[in-house]
Amino acid sequence: MTTVSAEWWPDVQPEAARRLMLAGVESFAKHGFHATTTRDIAGAAGMSPAALYVHFPSKAALLFAISRSGHEQTLALVENVLARITDPVERMRQLVEDFVAWHARRHTIARVVQYELNALPEEEYRIVAKLRRRIAQLVREVIAQGVQADVFTVTDQHVAARAVLSLGVDVARWYGDRVRETPEALGREYSELVLRMLGTH
Amino acid sequence: MTTVSAEWWPDVQPEAARRLMLAGVESFAKHGFHATTTRDIAGAAGMSPAALYVHFPSKAALLFAISRSGHEQTLALVENVLARITDPVERMRQLVEDFVAWHARRHTIARVVQYELNALPEEEYRIVAKLRRRIAQLVREVIAQGVQADVFTVTDQHVAARAVLSLGVDVARWYGDRVRETPEALGREYSELVLRMLGTH
Repeated sequence: MTTVSAEWWPDVQPEAARRLMLAGVESFAKHGFHATTTRDIAGAAGMSPAALYVHFPSKAALLFAISRSGHEQTLALVENVLARITDPVERMRQLVEDFVAWHARRHTIARVVQYELNALPEEEYRIVAKLRRRIAQLVREVIAQGVQADVFTVTDQHVAARAVLSLGVDVARWYGDRVRETPEALGREYSELVLRMLGTH
Repeated sequence: MTTVSAEWWPDVQPEAARRLMLAGVESFAKHGFHATTTRDIAGAAGMSPAALYVHFPSKAALLFAISRSGHEQTLALVENVLARITDPVERMRQLVEDFVAWHARRHTIARVVQYELNALPEEEYRIVAKLRRRIAQLVREVIAQGVQADVFTVTDQHVAARAVLSLGVDVARWYGDRVRETPEALGREYSELVLRMLGTH
């Protein structure tokens, strides 16, 4: 359990906070945010409810930590691709590979992040929404760059960007232990589908 | 309220049962299945808990009615396209249009159907899983037909079929009142994206 939480949230300290985030992800994914109590989460993490409040003032604060971290990780992944690669086709290929692989590998986190957005308090929602808009904007920029360079043929850049992100996000819904492809292999297959969808010649 | 429920479930009788299904969809979508009580649902439908049990023996039975109907409607829509159209490109075009438009128009039902699958009791899950496999199989058959006719170019037919369905299903996650495209317009845009993804020349 320690290993998983350290792998998922390398930046979060102390270990008890990560343990609570892991228990939160698992409980929210299984029962939904509203049906989960802080007592359930503390129990799953092997802690007392009082110990939970040392790290997170509320159940919503825990959800926010999970959601913000998930969005920051995917934004970082996109920004990292853009920093390393300049060609629009190769940018999109790598972006889809990494985005899809992340949603397959972290499908439980991604489900909680995506399906419990409405459970975030207003101000926390705004912070997360800003991260989401930034991710969408970067994907639109890569598409616009490819259209400009005449390597993508796209009727509606907004719709195309949304479809690219949608394909990636939905991987979290259906991916699981019984899927034969590794996250990386799936990422490569999806990047081919997306490049075709964007009309690369 | 009567109008919506009659439009969503034209085959369900009496009206009280439809009213409970509508209240169930709205409550499950908002709070999740596990955090919703039969008392909540009955109250939202303007009925007593006892009156709910006249129509549905349990909360799970109500979820099953919603889930089965949703899957039957989407399967019927796919079968209807296959019965009317024989050309694989036109089949896929119409299939995606109708499937996407359904998931946009019925996004609240579709969310409950997709995200609460694991809340179904075992036997009910098996019935729904059979409908899901049938839908996926029909989509694979259209792709296979197009590959056979040399109008689709697809590396992995299984992955491609899953991506087509995934794009459609995920519409339910993000579609809402603030989206500018009508369900029908979105269906047409997505069918173009999918046909490209399948390598139509």
